[in-house]
Amino acid sequence: MPTTTALVTATASAPFAKAEMPLRKLTETSVAVDIKFSGICHSDIHQVRDEWSEGIFPMVPGHEIVGVVSEVGSKVTKHKVGDRVGVGVFVDSCGACDPCKRGMENYCRTGNVQTYNGRHYDGEESYGGYAKQIVADQDFVLKVPENIDFAAAAPLLCAGVTVYSPLKHWKVGPGMKVAIMGLGGLGHMAVKFAVAMGAETYVLGHTAAKAEDAKAMGATDYLITEDVKESHRDFFDIILNTISADLELDAILGMLKVGGTLIYVGISGNNQSFHPFSLITGLKSIAGANTGSISGTQEMLDFCGEHNIVSDIEMVDASDAASIDAAYARVVNSDVRYRFVIDASTI
Amino acid sequence: MPTTTALVTATASAPFAKAEMPLRKLTETSVAVDIKFSGICHSDIHQVRDEWSEGIFPMVPGHEIVGVVSEVGSKVTKHKVGDRVGVGVFVDSCGACDPCKRGMENYCRTGNVQTYNGRHYDGEESYGGYAKQIVADQDFVLKVPENIDFAAAAPLLCAGVTVYSPLKHWKVGPGMKVAIMGLGGLGHMAVKFAVAMGAETYVLGHTAAKAEDAKAMGATDYLITEDVKESHRDFFDIILNTISADLELDAILGMLKVGGTLIYVGISGNNQSFHPFSLITGLKSIAGANTGSISGTQEMLDFCGEHNIVSDIEMVDASDAASIDAAYARVVNSDVRYRFVIDASTI
Repeated sequence: MPTTTALVTATASAPFAKAEMPLRKLTETSVAVDIKFSGICHSDIHQVRDEWSEGIFPMVPGHEIVGVVSEVGSKVTKHKVGDRVGVGVFVDSCGACDPCKRGMENYCRTGNVQTYNGRHYDGEESYGGYAKQIVADQDFVLKVPENIDFAAAAPLLCAGVTVYSPLKHWKVGPGMKVAIMGLGGLGHMAVKFAVAMGAETYVLGHTAAKAEDAKAMGATDYLITEDVKESHRDFFDIILNTISADLELDAILGMLKVGGTLIYVGISGNNQSFHPFSLITGLKSIAGANTGSISGTQEMLDFCGEHNIVSDIEMVDASDAASIDAAYARVVNSDVRYRFVIDASTI
Repeated sequence: MPTTTALVTATASAPFAKAEMPLRKLTETSVAVDIKFSGICHSDIHQVRDEWSEGIFPMVPGHEIVGVVSEVGSKVTKHKVGDRVGVGVFVDSCGACDPCKRGMENYCRTGNVQTYNGRHYDGEESYGGYAKQIVADQDFVLKVPENIDFAAAAPLLCAGVTVYSPLKHWKVGPGMKVAIMGLGGLGHMAVKFAVAMGAETYVLGHTAAKAEDAKAMGATDYLITEDVKESHRDFFDIILNTISADLELDAILGMLKVGGTLIYVGISGNNQSFHPFSLITGLKSIAGANTGSISGTQEMLDFCGEHNIVSDIEMVDASDAASIDAAYARVVNSDVRYRFVIDASTI
């Protein structure tokens, strides 16, 4: 079995260490990718620490992967050696369920194959992007535009598409007022996308610490949610929630215009409560969305190429595996502007 | 001041009695309507009993009104004497707020003028359709198609448009599976509309008592919600809730397909609780809607003309005013198939 050097956690309480880990065998339709950069997603931390349970250990996290194709199977038509490519949150889907047939593999009802901490349909564990290499089927490998910074493109594969997809689905564009709740890894990408889509874009946050950053990204204003609940009633067409906290739903819904939608991409883990009157009196909706489809991810990457959009990143040198644990501690403290990316050449 | 004979409640605990009540003065732009039929809406009962508080007494309920134009103001262009017309839930709106400018007077942010138990912008109390006559501005008077039964058309003005509007807004049509929760005044209209729009239509209920009625209205099946929560996971594109009970939201949302929407038009009065995971894992939405706009109401009436859709009604003879109290008691017991309509000639 082929292997690759990876950053691995042996158990939920173990620190990161380097180890040789199994690599998928190249098939007729898969491609091998020399990983160049790999983003650190907050969900990596939850899974590495087994906070969602059912973690598969040893674990190699990472689902924000960019790299260069190093080898292709005999029937591969979509990619060739030397191509700049990306791999995102999942690397296979059943192809047979209703969402898969509708091109929404991210909602595969059989359960798609998560890029790491999952199992391929043949039973093999899946290992992610904190590694030197990955092998994936050509259909789940995306093309990364040549003109955007490669390292800063890595977070597009999860943080980027997770916010791009709902903004597109709910038709964000000129003439609309859009609020992004939270300015973190997802939030800062959402601001860039909403601005590029032509919407008047606001950030809703708890402190003004990142107000200047928001404006530099193109936001019209940075608002303290608690202060504007009344002044901004019936104000937004879309509110996209990227934070992992409970929401005071009736107040937030009150800030939506008639016909507006609150979209969850961040969630707290707790049940949320609302009064249906808050919806009925304004043709309002509460919705939720989860990453994006393969075609939607490619569309997002192409959009980033056209608009020269990438993530704001801090690079992590993984020469010492402990630097990943240190980066995790900073992510948990919201002390990163706005995404850590591992330089795979240091693994 | 002109007056009209009406069915009136003097206080929240008083029975109905007949009395002469004030009628709006005819203006240049208003029309006088000889009321022929007036539907009994469940919300009439809540307001007559002051269950929503702030009731204005004496009260003349009724916002499902059809009649014939008897007189028109000098500048009226939209209607002429002898026209079959209808008046619905509201008879004026501010015209200046964002929803009004967008043609969504039903969501007027200033507060539109409710047909009864409200106040006109000049301060006069509004009195509704349990009466011989009503005077309303031409812009808030609808045309009732000639080919549909007049008495059975009355409930279209509230029950009809309240379910037609969301079904249209969420683009119900061929290839979609739609569930209507509850087969009452609103629910039975929703079934007829969804079927006419070409959707595969189901009723979700608690007992099978109305199963045959549902099928006669064109429903594919009548399902007991409790029995099909698992068998019908990811099944419906749209679930329209017309019942006034708390919903077990996560289970109901589980019955929606990826991308599906649960729409509240009926509400219980209590806060509702859900886990955002139920939305995120399937691009699902919880929404709410409230009656319809003037243009939407006219569109609904025209649709009813094209498809020969009316309400299933039981006629109420109001010769004895106590018959209204008796009808209310039956509505509260869900003992009406499916809408009471008062014959105004008996008032």
